[in-house]
Formats: sequence, structure tokens, C-alpha cells
Amino acid sequence: MKSVPGSLGTAASIALRFGQVIFSSSSIVFMSLGVGFYSYTAFCFSVTIMGLAIPWSFTLAILDGYSILTKFPVHQSGIFMVIIIGDLVLSFLTLAAASSTASLVDLLLKADVSFCPPRLCSRYQISAAMAFLSWFLLLVSSLFNIWLLPWLDTD
Amino acid sequence: MKSVPGSLGTAASIALRFGQVIFSSSSIVFMSLGVGFYSYTAFCFSVTIMGLAIPWSFTLAILDGYSILTKFPVHQSGIFMVIIIGDLVLSFLTLAAASSTASLVDLLLKADVSFCPPRLCSRYQISAAMAFLSWFLLLVSSLFNIWLLPWLDTD
Repeated sequence: MKSVPGSLGTAASIALRFGQVIFSSSSIVFMSLGVGFYSYTAFCFSVTIMGLAIPWSFTLAILDGYSILTKFPVHQSGIFMVIIIGDLVLSFLTLAAASSTASLVDLLLKADVSFCPPRLCSRYQISAAMAFLSWFLLLVSSLFNIWLLPWLDTD
Repeated sequence: MKSVPGSLGTAASIALRFGQVIFSSSSIVFMSLGVGFYSYTAFCFSVTIMGLAIPWSFTLAILDGYSILTKFPVHQSGIFMVIIIGDLVLSFLTLAAASSTASLVDLLLKADVSFCPPRLCSRYQISAAMAFLSWFLLLVSSLFNIWLLPWLDTD
């Protein structure tokens, strides 16, 4: 069994998962502190996707921890496929959410100040940045797991 | 050498590449026919990315055609890595462009009609849909090439 740091059942993987949970949570928090986020479709989409990403990453962090503590690495390629596809789909959704939030904030900043007071708008910007970081970590997780896939069946 | 339909140097790959060229071109055309696209950052971003995707896909279509006609398949894993990374990066950029365009059109449709006359706005919507299709085909191309990668060095 080839071991790749960052793939399922390694300490680096736990770090990646906790990074995802932290960035997704802070993205939701910064978005929801603003009162008017539910009047924009893109902001609602972003909150929904982040709400999906948090339990996903948290569950996989627990799986990683269990795998390390019991010294019982996961070898089944079926589980790997589910995790890789889940990570990829979530990373695409997160990227879409982040970029639509960013483009919307950009337009709101250009438009009238009444649309978006500077204090509120900077929160939306931080939320978009956190979503981009969460996308990047999800992508890294899925790439490390993909890298391991060809060696699973020859084990 | 394992052969995967859709990977570099197959007829399916040419079809995918031409699909990408067609969808990217129509996305640019529908966007540029509207007069005011350059006043929105997201629309300019979309046009830029589509302008990058067209020459990339066209070059690779020519490489596929050359590889089929001369019956000289590409085996070098270096070339594959460049193509896979290029496809992945372009597909992320295309997804970001498509979703930011879509979220912007959604906001413009909700806002005053003077911002976005229905005839212009439906063009932007079609442009976003074409960008999403182009993203999907780029992703498919890159996944087929990734699938072939582990077999390249054992050849």
C-alpha cells in the first residue's frame, strides 16, 4: 500500500478537513451576520453549499481520526470512489458559490451605496474569500485521494 | 498501451474538443452581441476566459487529428500532464465565469428593467448556459486523460 500524505487516513488529511470546516463555517458566519443575504439568490446558494460542506468535511475528519487511532487504514476502492466523487462535486459547487458571491458583491459595490453599506459589503467579500479557500482545500483533498486510486486494486 | 475513448488521440477526443470550441464561441458571440457587456466585471471575465478556451481546445483538436492521421499516438507522460493541468485550470476558470455570469444575470433580471432589457438579458442567459456546457466538456476531457495517466509509465 503506497501512502500519500493528505489522502484518507493520514494526519495531513485531518488538517485539510479541519481547514475546510473552519473556512466553510466562517464563510457562513460572515454571510449570515448580514441581515439581507436571503434576498439574493447567489448568497442563499452560497449558504446552502457551505451548509453541505461542513457536515461532509467533519464526518471525513472523524473517519480519518478513527483510521489513525485504530491503525486500520481504509483500503476499499469503493469507499475511496465515493469520497473522491463527493469531494469533487462539493468542490465544484463551492467554486460556483464563491465566484457567484464575488461577482455579486462586485456589482453591489459599483451600484448605489444604499444597496450595500460598506460594513455589510466587506462581510460579503470576506465570506467569498473564505469560500474560495474552502474550495481550494476540498480540491487538494480530492486530488490526493485520486492519486492513490490506481494503487488500491494492486494491493 | 490501454486506450480510453475520449483521451488524447482518439476520435471521441476530437468530438469533445470541437464541442468545447463551439460552446465557447457561441458563449462569446451571445455575450458580445449585447452592447453593454464591458460595464460588468463578471461579463468581461467570462469573455476573457472563453477567449482563452477557444485556441486551447482548437490546438488540441488539431493535435488529436494529427495523432489519428499519422497513427502516431502520444505516449509521453509530460505532454499528458501539461494537457491535464491546462484542462483542469481552464475548466475551473470556465465554471467560475459561468456561475458569476449566471448570478449577475439573475440579479439584473430582478432589478429594474432599465438595467437589463429582456432581449439583452436572455442573450446573457444563453451565454451563461453555453459557458456551463463548455465547462462540462473540458472537465470530461481532463477526466479521461487523468484516467489514462497511471498506464503511461508502465508502457
